[in-house]
Amino acid sequence: MASLRSKDNFAKRMQLFAPSHAVSEILGLAERPDVISLAGGLPDPSIFSLQEIRESMERVMNDEAETALNYGPNLGISSLREWVADRMQRLENVQVDKNNILITSGGVDGLNLTSMALLDKSDVVLIEAPTYMVALHIFRTYEAQLVSVATDELGLNPNALEEQLNNLKRSGIRPKFLYVIPSFQNPSGRTTTIERRKKIVELCEAFGVPIVEDHAYAELAYDKSPVPSFKSIDPDNVIFVHTFSKIFGPGVRLGWVAGTASLVERLGLCKLGTDQCANSLTQRLVFDFGSRGLMEKQVSFSIELYRKKRDSMMKAIEEHFPRHARYYKPAGGFFIWIELAAEIDTESLLTTSIEREKVAFVAGRPFFHDGKGGNYLRLSFSFPQQELIDEGVRRLGRALAEASSK
Amino acid sequence: MASLRSKDNFAKRMQLFAPSHAVSEILGLAERPDVISLAGGLPDPSIFSLQEIRESMERVMNDEAETALNYGPNLGISSLREWVADRMQRLENVQVDKNNILITSGGVDGLNLTSMALLDKSDVVLIEAPTYMVALHIFRTYEAQLVSVATDELGLNPNALEEQLNNLKRSGIRPKFLYVIPSFQNPSGRTTTIERRKKIVELCEAFGVPIVEDHAYAELAYDKSPVPSFKSIDPDNVIFVHTFSKIFGPGVRLGWVAGTASLVERLGLCKLGTDQCANSLTQRLVFDFGSRGLMEKQVSFSIELYRKKRDSMMKAIEEHFPRHARYYKPAGGFFIWIELAAEIDTESLLTTSIEREKVAFVAGRPFFHDGKGGNYLRLSFSFPQQELIDEGVRRLGRALAEASSK
Repeated sequence: MASLRSKDNFAKRMQLFAPSHAVSEILGLAERPDVISLAGGLPDPSIFSLQEIRESMERVMNDEAETALNYGPNLGISSLREWVADRMQRLENVQVDKNNILITSGGVDGLNLTSMALLDKSDVVLIEAPTYMVALHIFRTYEAQLVSVATDELGLNPNALEEQLNNLKRSGIRPKFLYVIPSFQNPSGRTTTIERRKKIVELCEAFGVPIVEDHAYAELAYDKSPVPSFKSIDPDNVIFVHTFSKIFGPGVRLGWVAGTASLVERLGLCKLGTDQCANSLTQRLVFDFGSRGLMEKQVSFSIELYRKKRDSMMKAIEEHFPRHARYYKPAGGFFIWIELAAEIDTESLLTTSIEREKVAFVAGRPFFHDGKGGNYLRLSFSFPQQELIDEGVRRLGRALAEASSK
Repeated sequence: MASLRSKDNFAKRMQLFAPSHAVSEILGLAERPDVISLAGGLPDPSIFSLQEIRESMERVMNDEAETALNYGPNLGISSLREWVADRMQRLENVQVDKNNILITSGGVDGLNLTSMALLDKSDVVLIEAPTYMVALHIFRTYEAQLVSVATDELGLNPNALEEQLNNLKRSGIRPKFLYVIPSFQNPSGRTTTIERRKKIVELCEAFGVPIVEDHAYAELAYDKSPVPSFKSIDPDNVIFVHTFSKIFGPGVRLGWVAGTASLVERLGLCKLGTDQCANSLTQRLVFDFGSRGLMEKQVSFSIELYRKKRDSMMKAIEEHFPRHARYYKPAGGFFIWIELAAEIDTESLLTTSIEREKVAFVAGRPFFHDGKGGNYLRLSFSFPQQELIDEGVRRLGRALAEASSK
């Protein structure tokens, strides 16, 4: 049928997904076995506590298989919601209970449900520039209007935020929310300082704008104790989105949102129409593993491992990259963000890097909503094997030297 | 923050979700242990081939844990996509390969992704009256306009469809798609005959309207061989949505969409912004189980079990229900759909049934998009234990007798 095949029969939002499409296609290329990929933000498989995870799975399959194979509650299983709430009390020092927790199918599901519950077409969402490309994709799904706020090495700039809030207010616009990844940001690796966080919270309160805080990488702090979360500073105005992908494993497709009980109930309604409920089986696996105290053990182990990989990549960059490259040592997370000379276009650099040097990264443009960032690139040190990091960066250095000399 | 707590800060679509909210609240009540629930469409846990599922899980955890715990491809793992395509060739007699298959996080995810990819605000979706309430919820998410087509004991009525298509055409409207559950429909239990299917396919081709076919219950045929699917009659114009929830188990949160490669690619893009990919771990579990030939074994066993439960419920209804009740013996699936005297409102009947008789069902109105169906109710025979079916129907019969005598 022509009707199904022709492009114009798809929803308009599909055209807004073009940047994601381009990224997917290129990541496909990067999966060739001869290519060293510094692109995707996958965990290192060696962090998985395989022995303990197998024990937990065996326990679940022996004791609860019949319940685990059936539908679960749309908000998540009670035991996991309680455990998550307790853990947040401990780690974030915030008063939440089970009724404040929705178990999601990963962090992206949390962002999607939050957007579905809050965003009407043309609503304004404030974002950091740069920010997580999948979050941009989600906000586009609901045809939101994106307004970016400048960031620098200290994170989101409160002065820039105040200016945008005032600009919008003058036009009679109150943004639906501010989306922020305050710790070890994707893609920049930057962390918003505690002083700035306090100012941002005050501004958002004053302008009546909720904060959606993406906590994905925040537990992976390599140099010092984590900065207190927005949620811990202003629990009532912050929707906290977290994932088990980086602290346990992405394959279980689990995460959570912490918010008011009323928000959680509404997100649960949205969940009825997306995937009904998070995975019953893996929820029980993660609960069993977590309640044995093993999550913190795995996080500690991950921190040790990723710190070494970050240090190797920093060293390799210092050694192999041209002097015009600017970058920043991230204090946690998975990513190093590189700014190159203005005339370099990292999308064409990526094509030649994959073809000639067999190395892949993510080009910068899809992390901006407005086509900027063409001279940036994101490197990930989390997934490539330790012994390939130096070689990958060396290859990229050669591609960069060639691009710079043109 | 007032901004988060006040109702008017939520997206407009949240008001359209009110019927789902009501249903969720009532299902919550029905979960009291003293209540016999004939409401939810859950599989009977005794269909799960526990021993074999445990073996498959052990194999996955021993041989593939590291991959299974990490992200998978957004379209699903290759082995499962191939297996699903082969199985569809066998069961549906349709030429599909891996590139036509997207693995989803259950059937609802398939419907949601399809809607996300196709529906703009105010697009017309043709639906059966009654139809699956969660599908209505999803179409409302994208603010589609719902136009219903009459059904009767032979399923969707092609004459009624033709009339609607002509009406719409006169207004210059081409519906985005027709959503249909042709076999053992939810909630009506009815099956659209092969003659009608052929006519519907011709009409949809003639008017350029794709068909979204929900195959959820179609494999559970208790009386005779299944009627050929729409997909098998017109592969190119049918988007086929199926789920592992009824043939394997809902807890794994898996299903699939079969469509053109171009559609599948676009659905995969949509998936990047909902939950990124289906569960890596349970995809491997289901593939291992299925490739050992165990799926068909479990389906055969399920058919035997559910046939008995259907027969018990039919017998109980004949015995305990007032004579004005009209119903239809479903040839498969999970549901019996009851029409009561026009003056009975099943929503108030439900409240008294739960309170006084400790029995629950689903009231009819949420299965219609336009507030009709107030004198219908849906019973499910799949989940309640065999020995409670008669008692549950007896209690409901008492509640009905009381309501009728008022």
